[in-house]
Amino acid sequence: MEYKNLTKLTSFEKLSKVQPFDVKKGLNKSRIEKYQVKNADNLTYSFATMPISEEHLEIFQEFTKEQSLIEKYKSLLSGERINTGENRAVLHQLTRGQLLDDVVVDGENKGDFYKSQLMRIKEFSTKVREGKIVGSTNKEFKTVVQIGIGGSDLGPRALYLALKGYVLSQGKKVIDAKFISNVDPDDVSDVIKDIDFESTLFVLVSKSGTTQETLTNRDLVFDVLKSCNIEGFDPSKHMIAVTSKTSPLANSKQVLDAFYIDDYIGGRYSSTSAVGGAILSIALGYDTFSKLLQGANESDKNALNENVLENAALLDAFIGMYLRNVLNLESTAVLPYSQALSRFPAHLQQLDMESNGKHVNRYGDEIDYKTGPIIFGEPGTNGQHSFYQLLHQGTDTIPLQFVGFKKSQFEKDIVVDGSTSQEKLNANLTAQIVAFAVGKDDSNSNKVFEGNRYSSLLTAEQLTPKVLGALLAHFENKVMFQGFMWNLNSFDQEGVQLGKVLAKKVLNGCEGDELLLSYSALL
Amino acid sequence: MEYKNLTKLTSFEKLSKVQPFDVKKGLNKSRIEKYQVKNADNLTYSFATMPISEEHLEIFQEFTKEQSLIEKYKSLLSGERINTGENRAVLHQLTRGQLLDDVVVDGENKGDFYKSQLMRIKEFSTKVREGKIVGSTNKEFKTVVQIGIGGSDLGPRALYLALKGYVLSQGKKVIDAKFISNVDPDDVSDVIKDIDFESTLFVLVSKSGTTQETLTNRDLVFDVLKSCNIEGFDPSKHMIAVTSKTSPLANSKQVLDAFYIDDYIGGRYSSTSAVGGAILSIALGYDTFSKLLQGANESDKNALNENVLENAALLDAFIGMYLRNVLNLESTAVLPYSQALSRFPAHLQQLDMESNGKHVNRYGDEIDYKTGPIIFGEPGTNGQHSFYQLLHQGTDTIPLQFVGFKKSQFEKDIVVDGSTSQEKLNANLTAQIVAFAVGKDDSNSNKVFEGNRYSSLLTAEQLTPKVLGALLAHFENKVMFQGFMWNLNSFDQEGVQLGKVLAKKVLNGCEGDELLLSYSALL
Repeated sequence: MEYKNLTKLTSFEKLSKVQPFDVKKGLNKSRIEKYQVKNADNLTYSFATMPISEEHLEIFQEFTKEQSLIEKYKSLLSGERINTGENRAVLHQLTRGQLLDDVVVDGENKGDFYKSQLMRIKEFSTKVREGKIVGSTNKEFKTVVQIGIGGSDLGPRALYLALKGYVLSQGKKVIDAKFISNVDPDDVSDVIKDIDFESTLFVLVSKSGTTQETLTNRDLVFDVLKSCNIEGFDPSKHMIAVTSKTSPLANSKQVLDAFYIDDYIGGRYSSTSAVGGAILSIALGYDTFSKLLQGANESDKNALNENVLENAALLDAFIGMYLRNVLNLESTAVLPYSQALSRFPAHLQQLDMESNGKHVNRYGDEIDYKTGPIIFGEPGTNGQHSFYQLLHQGTDTIPLQFVGFKKSQFEKDIVVDGSTSQEKLNANLTAQIVAFAVGKDDSNSNKVFEGNRYSSLLTAEQLTPKVLGALLAHFENKVMFQGFMWNLNSFDQEGVQLGKVLAKKVLNGCEGDELLLSYSALL
Repeated sequence: MEYKNLTKLTSFEKLSKVQPFDVKKGLNKSRIEKYQVKNADNLTYSFATMPISEEHLEIFQEFTKEQSLIEKYKSLLSGERINTGENRAVLHQLTRGQLLDDVVVDGENKGDFYKSQLMRIKEFSTKVREGKIVGSTNKEFKTVVQIGIGGSDLGPRALYLALKGYVLSQGKKVIDAKFISNVDPDDVSDVIKDIDFESTLFVLVSKSGTTQETLTNRDLVFDVLKSCNIEGFDPSKHMIAVTSKTSPLANSKQVLDAFYIDDYIGGRYSSTSAVGGAILSIALGYDTFSKLLQGANESDKNALNENVLENAALLDAFIGMYLRNVLNLESTAVLPYSQALSRFPAHLQQLDMESNGKHVNRYGDEIDYKTGPIIFGEPGTNGQHSFYQLLHQGTDTIPLQFVGFKKSQFEKDIVVDGSTSQEKLNANLTAQIVAFAVGKDDSNSNKVFEGNRYSSLLTAEQLTPKVLGALLAHFENKVMFQGFMWNLNSFDQEGVQLGKVLAKKVLNGCEGDELLLSYSALL
């Protein structure tokens, strides 16, 4: 199996000569019905409004073979050390179930390891929710606060917000979850000012056990806890850790219990490991988290499909690559028509930009093509009243990734002017897709919409835990496939190192560095 | 005074031939000290790490004259109908104080009008905060909920989050503010599930009084209120409106009181009008809102300066235009190192992208140059653990707009490993600016940072109400100046109309439109 640069592929050369499909002219009913691919749990990827024709699809299929995309995915699943820079396996898919043979790394059956941690989380979270594990002053836990940053924050936070309403609407208990991430001390102050410490459980998340922001925030929280002087209060009974077995947090007496991950779960891919598992199981119930894993696992299975038209994540990846490398479009907007997904774009921003924002290939050689796009987005209809003006009439084309659901989560709705809110929401989504695609002529040029502003749509019946899991894995696998297409290592992040080194230097007085000294003086 | 297209300007032709300054090679202490411009309230704009030399600055000055930038600003301030598309004056600066002569439009002294509404808000909000205006069951108001979308949501929400901590840290009362914006019914359900209606005041914000999302959400809230069957509860005593005098909401019996704006306050510029004024004065106190206005007014004054080096917003606008139109950079990341500014980038996203995301000039003629960039961002240090990888090592250069403060708001902080959290926060900011600017060589190409990733920095002592006002107006005026540079009408938004028309069509059964019908079937 060869790892080739994008521009060395015959299929890419072919692809770069194919004209984009004219959506404005060619969009019709049969195209909309035909250009749909199912992912897991009836999550449907529709791409009729993308500049893609049968010719493109054929080349995508050739490309799949030429760059061995499915083989590379299988190799990743099998535990190969595909994260070459750090010499690590990449096993996040294994946290939601096994797809191929047993994976043994470092002499350990990794599937068993993740499963065992999951079972420990199931037990612990159930006891917390049933009031069998309580705080040091015998109060039941009513709030859970995750202290973590990056992947220990964005994914779990986005998923919690996405499912909280659903769980409540099912009449099930939600333990209120909060998140502290930023080293800005105001972040801690803002979160803890309203909580009752006696009924609060903190979840400290750091794989290495050395993340500066997270440890500092833990100490800041401990400091406040001490100053409260609550009789009989023992801070160590109010904190658990999610970390690696070898980290300084693993055997700390400061925590009630610790749940483990390992080096093979990258931060941005850790939502389905103990990093997301602990807080989501405590806040929303293990049952909810378990369904999320099931949806993700089914999406992972779908991604094994050799046929591009039966592999939603792969097709999405191809279209994104075509937009980036042939049509030279620099960014993608993610636009969920669901308020519950308000922070999902922020999670995808990390997932995508940290994975594929690279300038060298997996061997460290400079490459001569563009890699990961800018990802940004806000929920619709809010975005319509904000940045959509530029999307419709600005001077650049920005591809759009819409997400929508037939039903709301709470299903509390009324008819106003002949339609429910959910109907209005989806009418707006429908309208936007068509408006972007076909545009509008007008004698007043200020009212002209050029059209051919490309979009895709991911839809399902309702944003349930399973659908959310499928959606999460869809994007993880899309990013993985694009990394293979671009011949990148999508699993390291050397670009964050220099800032860390220089920040330490500043904290040590800048060591005579003129530039650091000058900027420090401003701050 | 002539309005000329960018590419018709001699100064722009000159500018497009000037080489970018090599920041990586040329950054030093004296440049950092010299390349700073003060805006109001000691808000400093530093641009040493932008690719700008003395030669650029001289041309900026020529351009200012050639395109009559300050004259155009004065013309706007004087009440001229500079929003040509809608034949409207643009008067948001007048909501925070008068800078030139009295402005009379439609026979009304507009300064007096805005001031009178502000005084009414002062009186009303003071009474609410002092418990002199209470709910229908005699409970004091403890929560205020804004129902509005777009400019009636993003700006007020961002400003509330930015100042809540500051007001608390001053030992002053904060009335908890919440926001309902999305027509997604789950947005309403999520916000109202935790509130006590008897002590809640709703603020309904719609200039026209006809915004679909806002009226639907009002009706949904009223529906829930009715179903609660609280004895003696009168919903109309729990809602005020912010609208125009002629709107259906102005004299509605459904509201306790109404505060007025007019057609000359665009949604995205309305934070300093009654749209932001009502909720911010109720939640944080009139005194706080008044200081915000003062800071904005001083920033507006600064923007009158003919000298580019004494006009921070104008200089920022010029550098942005140079990056966009000469260096062809498509986006800008806004990165505040302050958790309190967590939603400020979302506000700027609307402000900038809705104002300048245009493809025709103010006369409706097609233009041959790029206009407004994509704006996105998240607070540091969070972003460092997310998308900074791409900013450092991706294949595109993304200019960065940093914001930072010497002191935190709560000033609750501890020393961990020899430094406070605030020191760590700012050490990271310092480190990032330098890392992006000068990069790092390495024998391992995966660890190479190219440098010359451009940034600017806005700093002040602390994020106070005055500083926030100055910051808000800085960006408003930056966007305005860029609109003048590009010869756009920055104050209309025709790009949002088509979607509205089509959404109505969908709600009416699609009227036989094949494309709308096909997509409706998916949703």
